[in-house]
Amino acid sequence: MEPNIAPNVAETAAAHSGPIETDAVIVGAGPVGLFQVFELGLLEIKAHVVDSLNYPGGQPVELYPDKPIYDIPAVPVYTGQELTDNLLKQIAPFEPTFHFGQTVTTVQKQEDGRFFVATSKGTTFLTKTVFIAAGVGAFEPRTLKVDGIEKFEGKQLFYRVRDPSMFAGKNLVIAGGGDSALDWTLNFVADGPNKAESVILIHRRDGFKAAPASVAKMRELCDQYEMQFIVGQITGFEEKDDRLTAVKVTGSDGVTRVVPLDMLLVFFGLSPKLGPIADWGLEIDRKQIVVDTEKFSTNIPGIFAVGDINTYPGKKKLILSGFHECALAAFGAVPFVFPEKKVFLQYTTTSPKLHKVLGVETPVFD
Amino acid sequence: MEPNIAPNVAETAAAHSGPIETDAVIVGAGPVGLFQVFELGLLEIKAHVVDSLNYPGGQPVELYPDKPIYDIPAVPVYTGQELTDNLLKQIAPFEPTFHFGQTVTTVQKQEDGRFFVATSKGTTFLTKTVFIAAGVGAFEPRTLKVDGIEKFEGKQLFYRVRDPSMFAGKNLVIAGGGDSALDWTLNFVADGPNKAESVILIHRRDGFKAAPASVAKMRELCDQYEMQFIVGQITGFEEKDDRLTAVKVTGSDGVTRVVPLDMLLVFFGLSPKLGPIADWGLEIDRKQIVVDTEKFSTNIPGIFAVGDINTYPGKKKLILSGFHECALAAFGAVPFVFPEKKVFLQYTTTSPKLHKVLGVETPVFD
Repeated sequence: MEPNIAPNVAETAAAHSGPIETDAVIVGAGPVGLFQVFELGLLEIKAHVVDSLNYPGGQPVELYPDKPIYDIPAVPVYTGQELTDNLLKQIAPFEPTFHFGQTVTTVQKQEDGRFFVATSKGTTFLTKTVFIAAGVGAFEPRTLKVDGIEKFEGKQLFYRVRDPSMFAGKNLVIAGGGDSALDWTLNFVADGPNKAESVILIHRRDGFKAAPASVAKMRELCDQYEMQFIVGQITGFEEKDDRLTAVKVTGSDGVTRVVPLDMLLVFFGLSPKLGPIADWGLEIDRKQIVVDTEKFSTNIPGIFAVGDINTYPGKKKLILSGFHECALAAFGAVPFVFPEKKVFLQYTTTSPKLHKVLGVETPVFD
Repeated sequence: MEPNIAPNVAETAAAHSGPIETDAVIVGAGPVGLFQVFELGLLEIKAHVVDSLNYPGGQPVELYPDKPIYDIPAVPVYTGQELTDNLLKQIAPFEPTFHFGQTVTTVQKQEDGRFFVATSKGTTFLTKTVFIAAGVGAFEPRTLKVDGIEKFEGKQLFYRVRDPSMFAGKNLVIAGGGDSALDWTLNFVADGPNKAESVILIHRRDGFKAAPASVAKMRELCDQYEMQFIVGQITGFEEKDDRLTAVKVTGSDGVTRVVPLDMLLVFFGLSPKLGPIADWGLEIDRKQIVVDTEKFSTNIPGIFAVGDINTYPGKKKLILSGFHECALAAFGAVPFVFPEKKVFLQYTTTSPKLHKVLGVETPVFD
């Protein structure tokens, strides 16, 4: 899932003494967020891009990096990854700065007309415009639906592994049937610095979304008594002195077993959430941001919404529609970024000015 | 300029006993007209495509087949020809029928709700919907602006060579400085069945858009007294017994010479014309067709307009905007083609139904 073209990823927030001042902040690095960089770039508007994931590409890369997409215009077939790689190549001349692994939490209009934007990692911006290209929202891990278990999150219950050494030497229960669940299971069973004391994998059925080779390896380890696999669902837990001591696992036979543990790792995949966007004062209709079709502006002047997250009469959630929306939104941003400037539509095929911003040569012709 | 993928070109009108009955007629085989085929195809709507040119690709192929285009989303660079070739490949599963070298002259609503459509070559259709994707209009030869000379058109004044043998053995005057002018000049000077009695090339300046090799060859032939080149503009003509006998050519020195001739060939390039579209009862604003942004419908239900020929608040004449308009217009056409059918948006990545219409395999996944 690594892009072929290394994007310009920002230093951590600590490296900045104050907010980053910029023309545009784009919320979302999916295909539409990436193309927004291009359309802004043609108009000489510089952009910073924030995404909750740790890499560009959004939903197509997250959900189906290798599956073919047939309806990108003039491209008979692209995978999600190819789509992303080509967009990164296309926007490279505009040198956007990416801020990955963080969600935008705050957007506040300032007295000087700019917006103060802050992320979950503490990165802050003062920007003239905001482009929300957040697709169906930020991807967040699907959580375990067991009443009361959330209080152990970050202590004994985890949906992501940030520091594998935390789990070394521990009795682990891992829940899930996808690649993340299987990869971490194999990782913690294997000899090495992070080897767990014991590993029990729990999945609701005896069939996996994960790569067949990983599943075969897991079964081999079970046969060798290196780990255990239980078919069932976590339906409850036991605690003692505010510590999680065991989960209750109900099998397909209806029998519930108590499985003791030190740490519980849950990998149920990612699900999209509108999240804090709902609190920025934007007009929302059924979880989508209402925009006009002239500039794809929201009800707050200077904030635009493009791609799957917006709604207007006739809206279809198609990537190609998002591309069009980016183009018109970029023109809509000009009065906020260059209040004095008159901007005319120019064509990349013939405009020497656009050739200059794209860094390509203007062909000589009569 | 030949496409790499041979499109399905229709037999001449004579092969049909009556109008062709179809779901959709697309006026224009430029990038947007071609992509309209795709978006209709995904919804199982079959289309016939009419274009005034003799090949698909429209303006990018006609005006700049080899020049790079940088703003096709997710394609860092395409030439006009590559854009066309990839669109032809993308729409191939839907087997559109092309009718080249003819303009749509008539569009009339019938009592049964369908449209009667006729072309300049006599091809006729009965169609449920019409999509006007005619760009800046049909490309027609730029004419010679000399009062009264138009009465010789098709007899002694020609803007195209359909049958070179008509000019064999004649005293020719050829006007223009592009490839067509130079190529036909060299052709009629050369020994062979079409050799003219004499050839005089007239161009407003001593500099040419045509290929340098052709220009060099022409100058060599002048040095050998095989032909003549005159710098000047045609400003008048002489006639006798309703026959054109000479043109008056005014040079840069202001002197006007009389140049006798049998036939006058003018190659001033092609220029776009809205043409008969203006007479179909459509709401027009400054030579563009007014549409809504929900379905890109014109004021006549069942007639849609997409691409550079339409106008709406915020409109930018970008190919990528035309692609978006095609998608929404296709959905807008469904009630006219399938009055009973409910159509839901499906994705080419995941829909087995769309995989079937595209003729691709549905990948197996969990």
